[in-house]
Amino acid sequence: MSTSSQANTPPSRCRARELGLRHWTIAPGVNNAITDVPGVLVGHKTLIDGSGRLLPGVGPVRTGVTVVCPHAGNLFLHKVAAAVHTINGFGKACGFEQIRETGLLESPLALTNTLSVWTVADAIVTHMLAQNPEIGVSTSTVNPVVAECNDGFLNDIRGRHVQTSHVLDALASVRSGPVLEGNVGGGAGMTCFGWKGGIGTASRCLPAAVGGYTLGALVQSNFGRPQDLRIGPLLVGPFLTPPLSAPPPQNQGSVVITLATNAPLDARQLERLCRRAAVALARTGSVLDHGSGDFVIAFSTSRHFPHWPSTIHVPGELLVDEPLIMSHLFPAVVEAVEEAILNSLCMAESMEGRDFHWRAALPLAPIRRMLEALPADSKQEVD
Amino acid sequence: MSTSSQANTPPSRCRARELGLRHWTIAPGVNNAITDVPGVLVGHKTLIDGSGRLLPGVGPVRTGVTVVCPHAGNLFLHKVAAAVHTINGFGKACGFEQIRETGLLESPLALTNTLSVWTVADAIVTHMLAQNPEIGVSTSTVNPVVAECNDGFLNDIRGRHVQTSHVLDALASVRSGPVLEGNVGGGAGMTCFGWKGGIGTASRCLPAAVGGYTLGALVQSNFGRPQDLRIGPLLVGPFLTPPLSAPPPQNQGSVVITLATNAPLDARQLERLCRRAAVALARTGSVLDHGSGDFVIAFSTSRHFPHWPSTIHVPGELLVDEPLIMSHLFPAVVEAVEEAILNSLCMAESMEGRDFHWRAALPLAPIRRMLEALPADSKQEVD
Amino acid sequence: MSTSSQANTPPSRCRARELGLRHWTIAPGVNNAITDVPGVLVGHKTLIDGSGRLLPGVGPVRTGVTVVCPHAGNLFLHKVAAAVHTINGFGKACGFEQIRETGLLESPLALTNTLSVWTVADAIVTHMLAQNPEIGVSTSTVNPVVAECNDGFLNDIRGRHVQTSHVLDALASVRSGPVLEGNVGGGAGMTCFGWKGGIGTASRCLPAAVGGYTLGALVQSNFGRPQDLRIGPLLVGPFLTPPLSAPPPQNQGSVVITLATNAPLDARQLERLCRRAAVALARTGSVLDHGSGDFVIAFSTSRHFPHWPSTIHVPGELLVDEPLIMSHLFPAVVEAVEEAILNSLCMAESMEGRDFHWRAALPLAPIRRMLEALPADSKQEVD
Amino acid sequence: MSTSSQANTPPSRCRARELGLRHWTIAPGVNNAITDVPGVLVGHKTLIDGSGRLLPGVGPVRTGVTVVCPHAGNLFLHKVAAAVHTINGFGKACGFEQIRETGLLESPLALTNTLSVWTVADAIVTHMLAQNPEIGVSTSTVNPVVAECNDGFLNDIRGRHVQTSHVLDALASVRSGPVLEGNVGGGAGMTCFGWKGGIGTASRCLPAAVGGYTLGALVQSNFGRPQDLRIGPLLVGPFLTPPLSAPPPQNQGSVVITLATNAPLDARQLERLCRRAAVALARTGSVLDHGSGDFVIAFSTSRHFPHWPSTIHVPGELLVDEPLIMSHLFPAVVEAVEEAILNSLCMAESMEGRDFHWRAALPLAPIRRMLEALPADSKQEVD
Repeated sequence: MSTSSQANTPPSRCRARELGLRHWTIAPGVNNAITDVPGVLVGHKTLIDGSGRLLPGVGPVRTGVTVVCPHAGNLFLHKVAAAVHTINGFGKACGFEQIRETGLLESPLALTNTLSVWTVADAIVTHMLAQNPEIGVSTSTVNPVVAECNDGFLNDIRGRHVQTSHVLDALASVRSGPVLEGNVGGGAGMTCFGWKGGIGTASRCLPAAVGGYTLGALVQSNFGRPQDLRIGPLLVGPFLTPPLSAPPPQNQGSVVITLATNAPLDARQLERLCRRAAVALARTGSVLDHGSGDFVIAFSTSRHFPHWPSTIHVPGELLVDEPLIMSHLFPAVVEAVEEAILNSLCMAESMEGRDFHWRAALPLAPIRRMLEALPADSKQEVD
Repeated sequence: MSTSSQANTPPSRCRARELGLRHWTIAPGVNNAITDVPGVLVGHKTLIDGSGRLLPGVGPVRTGVTVVCPHAGNLFLHKVAAAVHTINGFGKACGFEQIRETGLLESPLALTNTLSVWTVADAIVTHMLAQNPEIGVSTSTVNPVVAECNDGFLNDIRGRHVQTSHVLDALASVRSGPVLEGNVGGGAGMTCFGWKGGIGTASRCLPAAVGGYTLGALVQSNFGRPQDLRIGPLLVGPFLTPPLSAPPPQNQGSVVITLATNAPLDARQLERLCRRAAVALARTGSVLDHGSGDFVIAFSTSRHFPHWPSTIHVPGELLVDEPLIMSHLFPAVVEAVEEAILNSLCMAESMEGRDFHWRAALPLAPIRRMLEALPADSKQEVD
Repeated sequence: MSTSSQANTPPSRCRARELGLRHWTIAPGVNNAITDVPGVLVGHKTLIDGSGRLLPGVGPVRTGVTVVCPHAGNLFLHKVAAAVHTINGFGKACGFEQIRETGLLESPLALTNTLSVWTVADAIVTHMLAQNPEIGVSTSTVNPVVAECNDGFLNDIRGRHVQTSHVLDALASVRSGPVLEGNVGGGAGMTCFGWKGGIGTASRCLPAAVGGYTLGALVQSNFGRPQDLRIGPLLVGPFLTPPLSAPPPQNQGSVVITLATNAPLDARQLERLCRRAAVALARTGSVLDHGSGDFVIAFSTSRHFPHWPSTIHVPGELLVDEPLIMSHLFPAVVEAVEEAILNSLCMAESMEGRDFHWRAALPLAPIRRMLEALPADSKQEVD
Repeated sequence: MSTSSQANTPPSRCRARELGLRHWTIAPGVNNAITDVPGVLVGHKTLIDGSGRLLPGVGPVRTGVTVVCPHAGNLFLHKVAAAVHTINGFGKACGFEQIRETGLLESPLALTNTLSVWTVADAIVTHMLAQNPEIGVSTSTVNPVVAECNDGFLNDIRGRHVQTSHVLDALASVRSGPVLEGNVGGGAGMTCFGWKGGIGTASRCLPAAVGGYTLGALVQSNFGRPQDLRIGPLLVGPFLTPPLSAPPPQNQGSVVITLATNAPLDARQLERLCRRAAVALARTGSVLDHGSGDFVIAFSTSRHFPHWPSTIHVPGELLVDEPLIMSHLFPAVVEAVEEAILNSLCMAESMEGRDFHWRAALPLAPIRRMLEALPADSKQEVD
């Protein structure tokens, strides 16, 4: 099986803000990616193989796994503050209970297809056990955190093609800097608003007066009804209809959203960030469909919580909620997640999957034209 | 003190869809109001008195109370299924714990200003005690449900001007049919996206194939940053700046959303509806600000749960979640709440309040012009 | 109306550990009271008036209010970390939503009867407005936190006899040192396991190796079925039947539990403490009855969060959860709450209330005899 | 590897009530087991192999898997109402998010060791995919529900010895009637209050006047500090000290509790049942330790929810909460879970595990003697 990684931006695609979107108000980081948060690493393993009729267990394969690491060290020994939030719970996310209780993340995050969640979680454990021989012998166990979307419209999802070795490959490939988007990693076979979806990322930088912190988002997009799609200030759904090669899936998919920041936030504050991701979903057109597993995971890289603490106190300081911080962080979350979703749409290329199911890439030219036709941002006269 | 009720639509105002909004896809009810749900009643008591400098405890007064009754009978004896949801909890809502536990509403809902919540709750109890002499003597007590927004920018909120008699007046005035909107009842002194906010309502009717049920919303709007305002497919915030007569309040306000339906839903399903209200907030531009108490309350009129049940079983039937119901109800919630918020903005008139603080009515003409300038809904050619 | 305060321990009563209970393993503080947490203050206002037949709105009166202050200063300006937890939500607690969102308490806590919750909340606001003229004018509003139990078996609860002045009296009377227990303050008319209940308190001190912190509890007890009562290692319910002067209330009451500590915990950790209070309820025999509003509120006095922060950072440090802290704090919560409940039973005297309803004091002599008859704590031989 | 199943009650062991416990007040079902709920099936696969020094990945093996099926049919096509509750979240339970959202269980439940959760979940999916060829092709995916405890004190938990075939064996072995307890299935290597723990079950039957429904519990016990153990009315922890062959694990373990009933309850009501399981934990001595993953899952067999509903309505009726039902069901939950835990302790035999770690069986004779020494249930004279 070929398990190639997408190498760079396809010639016909671009990131969302290159379309001329001007409604965002907060500056992105250097790469406009979750990796703009210092220390954060991302890796993908993309599995694309075969074509034609579905042979369950054989193919075609259109899937993969994406991993996000809060830092390059041993996460079990040096945990980070974290929170989770379930926007709509029709999904199979793993590891949420322990994060709710302890407020800590102790392993890399992984995003994959629905039926591979447990293999991927087990593979993350394999990775953590290898790093930490004392787990399960002289200390507690480890909590992998994995979330998923259903790529079964394109992918032989019953085949559960993501294997342990693929997860280890993804973990071995993590890096900082620009992040591949679109049909890559866990996003390989995803669908968003009837178009080809996938992985997208973005970031925002806070003003120095409120700490100058960075907030990054990475999404695996697989949600939305075509008629509802919004691109920034545009309701484009009624103007653009994706070609339909087969009846659409019964459920409208799902989305996984990961948030990273170096702002010194605790679990309660991170959970508040998570809840704002729903605003970004709405801005792109979601109505939080019944069958959609919409999950958010956030972590702060600002402090490491040692597994073997040397004192009974946590070092360092936290941000206050008021008066300014959350007024900057909440819009930053909304903008970063919105842009990450749009990036996943703008960067994904058309794909044919199982049973000749077809997902067209979101057409960028008409959107660019519609955006150009919008009135300029000069103030209207109010009568 | 004058406590006049707003009599009808002001000449210069109109409801949101009269501006030419065409993005909604689900038909409203006869009055496009929460009262389209059979049996639901609404009453307002508006308190507007005085002007000029703030004399705390004296005035000026710009406040009131709005009540929503699921039916005209004795709610303590004939309860209805209900749910609540806290989108952002920076608020003083009363009565939520018991609804979460029992899934039942047993009193009228009330909406008012922040510092009058407890007086209003106590007044609702006065009303219920008068109806039910056995409460607290031979049976349990009663749980009033009241939520609030902060109208202190215009109103002498420290004065807590809403008195028991005002609540009883509002309860005595409940009616079906068209609902007054704008500067009325609990919405009298509210602010939304920097413009005058207040009470708004709307409804949606489901197709007969999924039961033909009605879903209604009523909101008390007091949230949002001016630059973020969206009107349907338009991002108008950058084009329309409200005049500023004083520094804006430190926190960005809040919103109370009530949902009513005659669909036979249980508490779990109603809670799912509540969560979709956040999508509507986002569609109008909210980022769920830090200091905003954003609360949702939903009830179903389909069945009455007797306080003194004659059998151990609940009569009647419930809707299944799948495959069709929630796919219709969720968009209905989003549309009804979005339209109710826009109605609160479009129907509210300009108001001067304490310390000559001024809230301009949302200017409708430029919005109408912008909407007319949008491209028609014909499909773009996809390249 | 006479509103006398209970002056000291009645001759026939004693605190629970004086009965010979030896099963607790953690040392109490100096007064074995919530006030052992430095800075914490408690005040009561007890309302006992009239006798004989119930005249709703007139009497007999058997009720009151108890207030707990985390410190003697202005709580709005100097907030403390706090959390709430609902064990069973059939109750009317006020102020929980905002604590869940912000993790902060900004007013004294109050405990009272069910139908006086809103008057008491409003009175707390009156107190806070007087202290803080900027509330509602130049800054946000204030969130009172009040919880309740139903004393309607003895008290004319429909009369809502707790007035604003009574709450202000209770606030004016707060003090450190020993805390009055039994038929005092909000506990005046309460019933617990069919016996007279009321206010109880206790505390625990952690070893120096885990910080030497103090944990205190104060309860208003009004729950439990007679046959279920457990006193430490004894199941006494089957041996002791309270005299029954009237049919018992339909619902089995409720309980309010407040926890205070000087351990530097955040809201997430405090919420974890709250959840352990359910263990103490179970140890005294509760099955968390359907109609019981069982609420827990916890705060930490370790840090003050300024309303007007001068920096964007919170000063100071937090405790780690692991490895030792929670293993000491959780048992401390269980022991302190259990002992506080037993103290409320052991210190409350018999009382006649409305309609000649009678609640006997828990008989202490037979319990003392049963405890003395238990085998000594020497180890059994294991075969 | 030998994977024998425990065949029957060991000669030296007995179920808890045979010790002379008389404090329970509700009658058990025929087998005093979760299988007393009509249709419920249980299966175990026990893996015991090797001895001596730990060779991670090799052994010794002391683990297994236990499965609980709400009915014998295809659970994906005929789902049942369900709820989950997290008492303390330091654990790795899978499948909770979807049950919280949909209120439905669509696969067998499984209980196993911590590091085998994901393999077991994946195996459950394998089983469901085989039954349902349309999953992932023409309809949605499936949500396995698996919970775990850490048996690493006795078992080579890093070896993740539970394989897909073992889970399929357990599923193939499900049956009604008596249920094996103690060192069986997922309970093979567990520890409870310092003694050998494992699987336990019990049931309770409601009076005919409240429907005559049955409530069953099955637990996998692995929690508690030795000094805290309570057996019914006895605090035995201070009298019985388990022999210690090695330092105890850092964390105090966890417990999984499953509840089944044929009472027609919805998800909200089932969640209320789940919360009462914490009372049973407390009655046996738990303080809900920091490191304990304490999870509860409940389902009702009363109605089947079709995956492909033929109408938009759910057939049948529900129980009201009041006035009687929950007053019977809540104590039934407490008693059944308490007895199930005690059964797990009374039925488990001593076991040597990895590194010669030893867990003694709870000694029954001294407990029987202590129970016999208790005063009879005649009423004390109250002075």
